[in-house]
Amino acid sequence: MFRKLLTFEEAKKIILERFRPKPLGIEEISLLEGGNRVLAQDITASKNIPPFDRSTVDGYAVRAQDTFGAEENRPIMLKAHGTVRAGETSKIVVRKKEAAEIVTGAPIPEGADAVVMIEQTERKATRVRMFSAVARHENIMKTGQDIGKGETVLKSGKLLGSREIGVLAALGIAKVKVYVIPRVAVFSTGAEVVEPGRSLPAGKIYDTNAYSLSAAVLESGGKPIFLGVFPDNFVKLQKALRHALASADVVVTSGGVSVGPRDVMPKALASLGKPGTIISGIAIKPGKPTTIGLIRDKPVFSLPGHPTSALLVFHLLVRPIIQAMGGRRAEEDFEVKAVTTTKMFSAKGRKTFVMVILKRDKQNRTVAEPVLAGNSGAITTLARADGYVEIPENVQFVDANDEVAVRLLGEKQ
Amino acid sequence: MFRKLLTFEEAKKIILERFRPKPLGIEEISLLEGGNRVLAQDITASKNIPPFDRSTVDGYAVRAQDTFGAEENRPIMLKAHGTVRAGETSKIVVRKKEAAEIVTGAPIPEGADAVVMIEQTERKATRVRMFSAVARHENIMKTGQDIGKGETVLKSGKLLGSREIGVLAALGIAKVKVYVIPRVAVFSTGAEVVEPGRSLPAGKIYDTNAYSLSAAVLESGGKPIFLGVFPDNFVKLQKALRHALASADVVVTSGGVSVGPRDVMPKALASLGKPGTIISGIAIKPGKPTTIGLIRDKPVFSLPGHPTSALLVFHLLVRPIIQAMGGRRAEEDFEVKAVTTTKMFSAKGRKTFVMVILKRDKQNRTVAEPVLAGNSGAITTLARADGYVEIPENVQFVDANDEVAVRLLGEKQ
Repeated sequence: MFRKLLTFEEAKKIILERFRPKPLGIEEISLLEGGNRVLAQDITASKNIPPFDRSTVDGYAVRAQDTFGAEENRPIMLKAHGTVRAGETSKIVVRKKEAAEIVTGAPIPEGADAVVMIEQTERKATRVRMFSAVARHENIMKTGQDIGKGETVLKSGKLLGSREIGVLAALGIAKVKVYVIPRVAVFSTGAEVVEPGRSLPAGKIYDTNAYSLSAAVLESGGKPIFLGVFPDNFVKLQKALRHALASADVVVTSGGVSVGPRDVMPKALASLGKPGTIISGIAIKPGKPTTIGLIRDKPVFSLPGHPTSALLVFHLLVRPIIQAMGGRRAEEDFEVKAVTTTKMFSAKGRKTFVMVILKRDKQNRTVAEPVLAGNSGAITTLARADGYVEIPENVQFVDANDEVAVRLLGEKQ
Repeated sequence: MFRKLLTFEEAKKIILERFRPKPLGIEEISLLEGGNRVLAQDITASKNIPPFDRSTVDGYAVRAQDTFGAEENRPIMLKAHGTVRAGETSKIVVRKKEAAEIVTGAPIPEGADAVVMIEQTERKATRVRMFSAVARHENIMKTGQDIGKGETVLKSGKLLGSREIGVLAALGIAKVKVYVIPRVAVFSTGAEVVEPGRSLPAGKIYDTNAYSLSAAVLESGGKPIFLGVFPDNFVKLQKALRHALASADVVVTSGGVSVGPRDVMPKALASLGKPGTIISGIAIKPGKPTTIGLIRDKPVFSLPGHPTSALLVFHLLVRPIIQAMGGRRAEEDFEVKAVTTTKMFSAKGRKTFVMVILKRDKQNRTVAEPVLAGNSGAITTLARADGYVEIPENVQFVDANDEVAVRLLGEKQ
């Protein structure tokens, strides 16, 4: 009755070897739509940024040595000679003892090699007093000082945030190549599951997973295709899977994968194409009944029906696949060190994930407290957790007061 | 020539007192669109979850005491009595020495008080052998064990992620009240600024800020209204500001706020309505020329033109306002402790923000290295930084090897 389950690492290896996740394709979009997309090209600067020596302040462009010795009590007088505006090329040449008025961002005129800030000057008609000396190149940003021509500034696989978008704009790039977003079909199975918003007959519960997993797909950089709930009847499931496989790149289902008489998901999977089921159960807790199929070149993740298990296994196994298909670099969960408040046991022979809440104790240490203490909520466990502690297969327990690494599940509010 | 600037804390206080940011409104949306929205209602459970005692495994529902003493080598025989399906109410009553077949999620039949997992049973016709004893309530999730009726499970102001959406779905909630997304108009000013994608005449540079700030608005939970570039000419700026104020709840501009002859932004602001400019310069570095206006009830943030300054001041001052207007709870930047690699100086009398890169040194300590070492890039400084170190006004420098708190700017990839 007992069969040997794959370990977590074996399961991950099989997924990678059999499926080989890779980006689906590349599309060109406007930079304005670039937020949260993944760059699909290396970006090399085609010009120097700035393209010319610029003033970084409002003031007077001068020859630095003309200001040497100037002090608040002993100003040096220069001759005002023209005005350099931003956005224009100027014919002004600054000669000995001359100062050209200049604004932030304007090109440094010929002859000048520094700028005195306006706050350190006083102008009277054609005379300008300098109350401070400047060194050569002071208040000047040199050509290419920000980005040098030919420099590779961003690499393919980079997630575009406000800062990266700023870099692209500065280079004059208005359209950018990004990876195509993977489409992920999501549905729940089970005769007992009813869609939220409807009335709830006796013996039924509302569907949690199609909603939480669709949101998790979005959080992983995928586009969810929400298909709702299907009864776990062979013909209907087969139809649902066929539709999901036709409209998406990945399929994620939940429920119907344990060993009961109604568990038709593995059979439906097997009926749809080669190689069919590639993983049937994993030695993890929670998440043991996880079943993974491969129908031609598309993976089907059949997660447990228990909402916390479904979302955790999604996080551990499905999210990295969606990210890889979206061209995103592998991303480790952010880790925080914490001290356990209590002994935490592992499930015999299974890698165990204990959901924990992070708190500060009286000595101001970060402590990890299991969410489960006193309550084994299916839905609320994960919602309350800040992260999880991983206990390896060969470790029986983590003792109270042990230091552990807590992997964070989301931003702590 | 020198005037007393507001401190950073004074400036923040003035913004809060004069503007008083508050949520703009509430709208009801489908739960499927709830990802990354902010809940605008407390959610109290209108029913118990689960609504009935459920089996958490596939197996046989029994009276626990009938199994006492059962072991792998000494099974106890019970009489199979009916099947309980998920999603149905069952009329089965489990009596002494009886066992009803049951699947995960099905309601526990009358009389039974525990479930034996199918792996620990063996069925022959109407007889079932139990190879393991179970305790009362074992493998049963009791009514309301996950969420009790009347329990407040989520509070207004909560950012909805996959886990919160799962909780809402489980309660049968298909539509949810969320705060309206603040609209934020963004434009750049300056005669030297050209939109990316066009050719670059001599003396001009490409616009960075309208793009990076629009992406930053999105990252802060706002909806950017991208307006592009306007020359810093009084009439055109006034027109741009008027249009921005008519179409958005907040306006963010950059450039044109220092003290040069062309800085018409403060004048344009003053011309548009009361109270006009409420902050004119802040004692921070970078970001000193930051000007903030209030036109009737709408704030206008005029940020410096320098791309790193603009994005940092946005992060420090504008982002919290957008979040508050979107109903989001105040959120501290995530902090990491690190050791400085070098002495970092503050600007005299100004709160100074030093952009740093986090690294590991040979002793495996987390160290903070200023991005500026050797290069003062306007665009690349912030793009390269992992976070910033804050040096208070009254501190002259942070020494090398000091421990500092680094506030993170984004996910480290």
